[in-house]
Amino acid sequence: MSTIEVVGLDADDTLWHSEVFFERVQRRFVELVSRYVTADVDVAMALEEVNLSNLARYGYGIKGFTLSMMEAAISVTDGAIGTEELSQILAAGRTMLDHPVDLLDGVDATVTTLADAGYRLVVVTKGDLHHQQAKLWRSGLTDRFERVEIVPEKDPATYRRVISSLGVTPDRFCMVGNSLRSDVLPVLEVGGHAVHVPYHLTWAHEDADHDGSVPTLDHISALPAWLDGA
Amino acid sequence: MSTIEVVGLDADDTLWHSEVFFERVQRRFVELVSRYVTADVDVAMALEEVNLSNLARYGYGIKGFTLSMMEAAISVTDGAIGTEELSQILAAGRTMLDHPVDLLDGVDATVTTLADAGYRLVVVTKGDLHHQQAKLWRSGLTDRFERVEIVPEKDPATYRRVISSLGVTPDRFCMVGNSLRSDVLPVLEVGGHAVHVPYHLTWAHEDADHDGSVPTLDHISALPAWLDGA
Repeated sequence: MSTIEVVGLDADDTLWHSEVFFERVQRRFVELVSRYVTADVDVAMALEEVNLSNLARYGYGIKGFTLSMMEAAISVTDGAIGTEELSQILAAGRTMLDHPVDLLDGVDATVTTLADAGYRLVVVTKGDLHHQQAKLWRSGLTDRFERVEIVPEKDPATYRRVISSLGVTPDRFCMVGNSLRSDVLPVLEVGGHAVHVPYHLTWAHEDADHDGSVPTLDHISALPAWLDGA
Repeated sequence: MSTIEVVGLDADDTLWHSEVFFERVQRRFVELVSRYVTADVDVAMALEEVNLSNLARYGYGIKGFTLSMMEAAISVTDGAIGTEELSQILAAGRTMLDHPVDLLDGVDATVTTLADAGYRLVVVTKGDLHHQQAKLWRSGLTDRFERVEIVPEKDPATYRRVISSLGVTPDRFCMVGNSLRSDVLPVLEVGGHAVHVPYHLTWAHEDADHDGSVPTLDHISALPAWLDGA
């Protein structure tokens, strides 16, 4: 076993699918709203602008996203959108929240292998407290995790606090996730290990540049072997 | 000093005003929506029904409340509500989220007295992670608290977990808050101490019966003396 004692795993698009549902709802939003605007209006862009402008206020998660869709639907159509379409947007948000958790391929076997090998496992995730807790319950993975840290932002200060509260030094902690900006770079900055497992869709907001030296795995099932060699 | 070592404080309507803003926005909601319904329709009741039906999905907090207002505004008016009114409802939700934190009278002095007396202080609150964190920063009280626990539900299991993670036995923990149902009864159930400090407004959902034996203070400023005698 390696010098790494605790493995932190991101949740959305690392343990289970998430962005794919946002993209699907966003396509439906564009379809519903486009009937009320001229062809030159970029409805998706208008939504993204409202979404980003509300991020400091709403934080991450589906509820804030749905509120931003409602706001954008009204503003981009100058109030012409119908309440029938607005109801459908609200319903799309509820459907996302109620959606069964859809684990990524290989996740169940990998976290079981890691837990059996004696690694302490924690989930470290942004997003909405209530919904992230609900997803973890639904995932069936709860018993393999020591704890869940739902944090408002994934920055170096947050990782310092989380690692310290786990009672380990940063060199004994490894974070695994699909976002360079949130899961990898801030952890390396505080002296921890980090592994990038890209997802096929990445919200532009989570993108970041790096110099190519970040450990990257094509698939989470390669993680146990990588950790044992670290 | 008493045998109590850690004091847990609820946040909304214990440290700062909250329900008063919900009530104000709800009155505005009724005003906006009532124009579109006949006089026999109970708009406030319709909102409360939608709100409660969404509670398991949205959890507590302003974002979920705003989404429920949007849904209720459309359904109770059979879609007749205008997008201008819907925009105003969305804006009311944003205003609530952006509102400066309004500490209850005596809170600042009381938590300072408790911290100076050597009590370990923690905030234990339901609601939206992002917004509760933001309110604590804005409150200026952060440095007097050891930590903040934002929990999805305040039940006995949650309190057992929180108390154990603080490294104390339940008899060394005292919870203080305005909700019998959330702050007092579940803590007494797990063997901790609890003090009820009522607020002049209580959401019906937070109400509970008790046998009259619950320690109750008229004002939070009486807390240090009560704890010293406990």
